[in-house]
Amino acid sequence: MTIFDEATAVTRRGEGTYDARPDPRFAMVAPGGTAPPAVNGGVLIATVLRAVLDSSAHPHPVATSATFLRVARLEPAEVQVTWLKHGKTASTAHATLVQEGEPVLDVTVTTGTVPAGPEAAAAAGPARAADPARPLRSEDLHWTDAPPPFPPIEECVDLGVWPGAVAQGGAAGFAAQIQVLFDPATTGWRRREPSGLPEMRGYFRLREEREADAYLLALAVDGLPPVAFGLGATGWAPTVQLTWHMRGVPSAGPQRVAARSRHVGGGWFDEQAEVWDAADRLVAQSTQLARVGRGPVHGPADGGRPG
Amino acid sequence: MTIFDEATAVTRRGEGTYDARPDPRFAMVAPGGTAPPAVNGGVLIATVLRAVLDSSAHPHPVATSATFLRVARLEPAEVQVTWLKHGKTASTAHATLVQEGEPVLDVTVTTGTVPAGPEAAAAAGPARAADPARPLRSEDLHWTDAPPPFPPIEECVDLGVWPGAVAQGGAAGFAAQIQVLFDPATTGWRRREPSGLPEMRGYFRLREEREADAYLLALAVDGLPPVAFGLGATGWAPTVQLTWHMRGVPSAGPQRVAARSRHVGGGWFDEQAEVWDAADRLVAQSTQLARVGRGPVHGPADGGRPG
Repeated sequence: MTIFDEATAVTRRGEGTYDARPDPRFAMVAPGGTAPPAVNGGVLIATVLRAVLDSSAHPHPVATSATFLRVARLEPAEVQVTWLKHGKTASTAHATLVQEGEPVLDVTVTTGTVPAGPEAAAAAGPARAADPARPLRSEDLHWTDAPPPFPPIEECVDLGVWPGAVAQGGAAGFAAQIQVLFDPATTGWRRREPSGLPEMRGYFRLREEREADAYLLALAVDGLPPVAFGLGATGWAPTVQLTWHMRGVPSAGPQRVAARSRHVGGGWFDEQAEVWDAADRLVAQSTQLARVGRGPVHGPADGGRPG
Repeated sequence: MTIFDEATAVTRRGEGTYDARPDPRFAMVAPGGTAPPAVNGGVLIATVLRAVLDSSAHPHPVATSATFLRVARLEPAEVQVTWLKHGKTASTAHATLVQEGEPVLDVTVTTGTVPAGPEAAAAAGPARAADPARPLRSEDLHWTDAPPPFPPIEECVDLGVWPGAVAQGGAAGFAAQIQVLFDPATTGWRRREPSGLPEMRGYFRLREEREADAYLLALAVDGLPPVAFGLGATGWAPTVQLTWHMRGVPSAGPQRVAARSRHVGGGWFDEQAEVWDAADRLVAQSTQLARVGRGPVHGPADGGRPG
């Protein structure tokens, strides 16, 4: 059993009730270390998804919408699952991660089935029938827009541990569990030379050997540093709401994650991410709304060292 | 009081409980008329938001995530609101629209404050401080990507009533309440000449005189025909999950709505929409996952009349 599987494990205690335990191996602290250690949000979402899928008639978390209410502590937690609808194509559950009687993470999950094979591999171009011999039906349409630009993996860089991805006292935490090989065009913020564009792109994988699946996609969609760093923003950028869609079962190998923002303002920023697998299939999409961290803006003008 | 305000009205019955009534003036029927009449999803979300904002300490629905569970009937409904967190910057409520004891629409709403004025009007370009005299802080950053391309409103076309936007018996319904002036590049599907791109763009407004606000944005983000029509898809395309973010208080005048998909496959499609106001500010963003309708694909090859 891998560390990731241990960290997201749930144990069924009764009807719709599961025990979980946020894992220090995926902990993160705010830069400056003033806040108590938190656990990476994607790991918490994956934990909730395990509880939901345990009693789901459908195999995949097709649409997951999560609202982060409180910082999860390194203490026992409970996941409460209530099914709102059981359908032939899709079913929906409402689930809450609770600690000390208070909701920490509120999640609504619709489960269904997404393509596992090349059906999802259609390149951008005209829609076409899966079987050319029969007329195309609307429900058989498949079409995919162009993937985001990615340099070859050999040209990408490992930034190691970035602010916000370490555990208390600078110990490894989240950053030691995952590896992101970044598109160099999105790494200037690390040298206090932000690109001026709120974008992050990187090849994402666990450092341990493990197949990609829905749980890993839940981690990948929010696994890169906040895109606001590309504008020179610093500080903890807490996610308020994250919605992600699973569009295909990912193939083995590193997943390409591309995230960007459309608008930063009023102290809020959106972050929209896509995950493409090694077979060039769009396997996950996400959108989140987060708060811009409080702190100075780092840019070439401030002459400081990378923080 | 406008028809839209009447259709989305709620009456407080008790602590966290509101009466509502889905309004036939916003009804829609599936093409073919086989299913019972439904009420437009955006109108239902606006109804739920009214109940949530009635007891919110913050003025704006910053992040709304809605899962459609059942078809809403033209019968009395109840909205149940439970607050999960009251925070200084943001508060979160879980709300459910219930009919005959069953959940119809499951919604999580985070309320907060978004800019009402020109703060949100930053054009694409380097981030800058609101007050140039003091150092830029991360929380003051504002940045906006380029708006989607839109032709002048004079070049846009009113398609009148489109399939799925009429009420039972072909009566007006939803389509009679709103006016969309479409970018002609996204209207070929109406002549069975779909563009081959899953896109819709149009200037959106109510036919009655009414200020734009959060409730109208809830309508606008899902107010255009399904983008899958641009690939020739036909039939009812039910939204499973819709998340939208309010980014600014909209100015008066028609709102520009641009929607597109990144991937259609496995019977699912995503639809990502943006709403830009007349002052060129990005005021709302949404993403939804929907089922592709069941039905033939309409294209130039089938030689049929517009359906």
